[in-house]
Amino acid sequence: MTDSTSDGPGPDDATTNLLSDSGALQGVTAARGFRAAGVTAGLKTSGRPDVALVVNDGPSDAVAAVFTSNRAQAHPVIWSRQVVGDGVARAVLLNSGGANCFTGAFGFQTTHLTAEAVGDALGIGAGDVVVCSTGLIGVGDQTFRDGVLRGVTLAADALTDGGGPDAATAIMTTDTKPKQSVVTVDGWTVGGMAKGAGMLAPGLATMLVVITTDAALTSDELDQALRAATRVTFDRVDSDGCMSTNDTVVLMSSGASGTTPEVGDFQEALTAVCADLARQLQQDAEGAAHDIAIEVIGAVSEDDAVTVGRSVARNNLFKAAVFGNDPNWGRVLAAIGTTEAEFDPYAVDVSMNGIRVCHAGAPDQPSDSVDLTPRDTHVLIDLGVGPYAATILTNDLTHDYVHENSAYSS
Amino acid sequence: MTDSTSDGPGPDDATTNLLSDSGALQGVTAARGFRAAGVTAGLKTSGRPDVALVVNDGPSDAVAAVFTSNRAQAHPVIWSRQVVGDGVARAVLLNSGGANCFTGAFGFQTTHLTAEAVGDALGIGAGDVVVCSTGLIGVGDQTFRDGVLRGVTLAADALTDGGGPDAATAIMTTDTKPKQSVVTVDGWTVGGMAKGAGMLAPGLATMLVVITTDAALTSDELDQALRAATRVTFDRVDSDGCMSTNDTVVLMSSGASGTTPEVGDFQEALTAVCADLARQLQQDAEGAAHDIAIEVIGAVSEDDAVTVGRSVARNNLFKAAVFGNDPNWGRVLAAIGTTEAEFDPYAVDVSMNGIRVCHAGAPDQPSDSVDLTPRDTHVLIDLGVGPYAATILTNDLTHDYVHENSAYSS
Repeated sequence: MTDSTSDGPGPDDATTNLLSDSGALQGVTAARGFRAAGVTAGLKTSGRPDVALVVNDGPSDAVAAVFTSNRAQAHPVIWSRQVVGDGVARAVLLNSGGANCFTGAFGFQTTHLTAEAVGDALGIGAGDVVVCSTGLIGVGDQTFRDGVLRGVTLAADALTDGGGPDAATAIMTTDTKPKQSVVTVDGWTVGGMAKGAGMLAPGLATMLVVITTDAALTSDELDQALRAATRVTFDRVDSDGCMSTNDTVVLMSSGASGTTPEVGDFQEALTAVCADLARQLQQDAEGAAHDIAIEVIGAVSEDDAVTVGRSVARNNLFKAAVFGNDPNWGRVLAAIGTTEAEFDPYAVDVSMNGIRVCHAGAPDQPSDSVDLTPRDTHVLIDLGVGPYAATILTNDLTHDYVHENSAYSS
Repeated sequence: MTDSTSDGPGPDDATTNLLSDSGALQGVTAARGFRAAGVTAGLKTSGRPDVALVVNDGPSDAVAAVFTSNRAQAHPVIWSRQVVGDGVARAVLLNSGGANCFTGAFGFQTTHLTAEAVGDALGIGAGDVVVCSTGLIGVGDQTFRDGVLRGVTLAADALTDGGGPDAATAIMTTDTKPKQSVVTVDGWTVGGMAKGAGMLAPGLATMLVVITTDAALTSDELDQALRAATRVTFDRVDSDGCMSTNDTVVLMSSGASGTTPEVGDFQEALTAVCADLARQLQQDAEGAAHDIAIEVIGAVSEDDAVTVGRSVARNNLFKAAVFGNDPNWGRVLAAIGTTEAEFDPYAVDVSMNGIRVCHAGAPDQPSDSVDLTPRDTHVLIDLGVGPYAATILTNDLTHDYVHENSAYSS
């Protein structure tokens, strides 16, 4: 095991110390066997880069992916689910500037044509091309199609083995910065990029993540590791409770390191990259003034801990109170009470930033002894009925959130 | 059947035409056999009235009530659930200025002492006194107890048969106006008062409603009618998705009219009063700039229609878009997709203020043809899979909402 630190500290010390300070090797091109590009195809009125391409040059072409659980799924999600079904993919084409969701049969044809164009440009089959789109739902007309196809040509010509940062930039929508992470372990590497602000994105349609590795693993091994990693990372970022139609996390293995790591080692590295990217998503959530970690302990099951954390994370009253630096623990308890989780409302402890403000369902330390001015906010909820725990990452509800999301499509 | 119109139009024309323009007879004292008072006991730092008392002088003492389904329940809720268990109550004591929730054993004793004080003042048993509290969770110390008990004495001395408006004023917290409604039918009357902004209150701990009638009905009849009425009125106001710990709706019958109406007639009158009060709660929701009716049709069950409407009503992205007068139907579809309701995402129609912006899951009329500037906003969702419908009332997500709720307890 080697290396340490990245731009954003991960939420878990046990994995954070894996993160690489990898210099020139960044994001999806840190692992060997991958090329990437990010280009400007004119989809964004801002004129910023808007089409990214990530290519796996092998020797392996194993892939795994997870998609949004929203039953309203964008055309690229419907397409890509089929693509990864056989465990094989060679490229991921991503565009910002339009989600291509609820755009009718024309929209699905656009996704299909996009994959065919990538296949033609790279000399591979369209059925091995994952497609991801992000931006406004309902955007996917002829102009959009023309732009994406123009982007495919430009991106295929621009592919390099150092193109990770360009790709990470091209998938941004309201992100203020690109998000990348790398872990290198004993000769093999896991790298990734992300955009958005959570599986439950605050301001746009999507969280998109592409992760690459040169470790040699089968698609089944990738699939198991990816599901285990996303379950405890991206699935626990709940910035605003709004589930997207386009969320996609893709993991590709090139096998170019020639090394097959122990399953546990790969799981650890992959989880570290996912946790780091998840934390970067939280820190860049639209309009947020606080990054809130809601740690639930003493639950009878991990599911209960997640349920309680998510309920608090979705409570607008609690979130607005944190924005106002108000340690309003009553709103925490009211949110817990709406769940089916096992607990006794009059035995719960709540601490905020280290001060226990509620003990056994009654006031404890005075609320004015809590300092909520730091951006990093820690809420500890002890249900006191079992040994299980989980942490949900969320953000506060701010004027900027309302502003950005009342004006985004206007 | 007689009379028409009140301060606030109800959401349903079929019941609105029952509402009385009753002149001097208002709210909980419109029905014969009731006295009420609202007094200033010093619980509110503003010096505004904060304790209300409603007394049923009979001859009947039948009562029914529904309470919050939040598992974290305030002491007054725990107490009052016991009080109404035998179908008998003679008085309701309500305070603003503190929710007496999560205030430990002392808090429960305060509720008990409050009921005993009312019983002593009126010459009735404490076990026939419903107690309701509203305000901040965690407030319920000795000062609070002293204030409430002082209020009991003052209120008992101030009881009159025209005290309804005073009582309606004393239960206000961040409400900007008192909320009352009356229906008179063939010699019997249903009247009521309310505070808060929904079963899922936007800015404080509670929705409280007291309804009185001089119709002669048993407690079982009251209970059935009340559950049927609240299910389609208060339960469908979902202003901000935050479920309270103190919500209480109490219905008392004095029987003083000497008339026992047909069950259907009473149900209709009671539902009209509840719908009118629910609409007034929505119209006075904290910080709201739009009153949004989300009408879901074409569902395979009423439950599905409610589920879909509630999911849209709780979607912050949709609510912020309405605040920005942005008919962002993609956010409506994304919210529908998070439910378990039966539907085909590519067969849904969505109209906003009469303009169909989405047909069969694809763009229809241009969004800029929708005028969202009126405060009253209508979203029509046709799931197209069945004959059932339901309407959820909600509000938009505004800067004022964030402001009021980030500063409420500071």
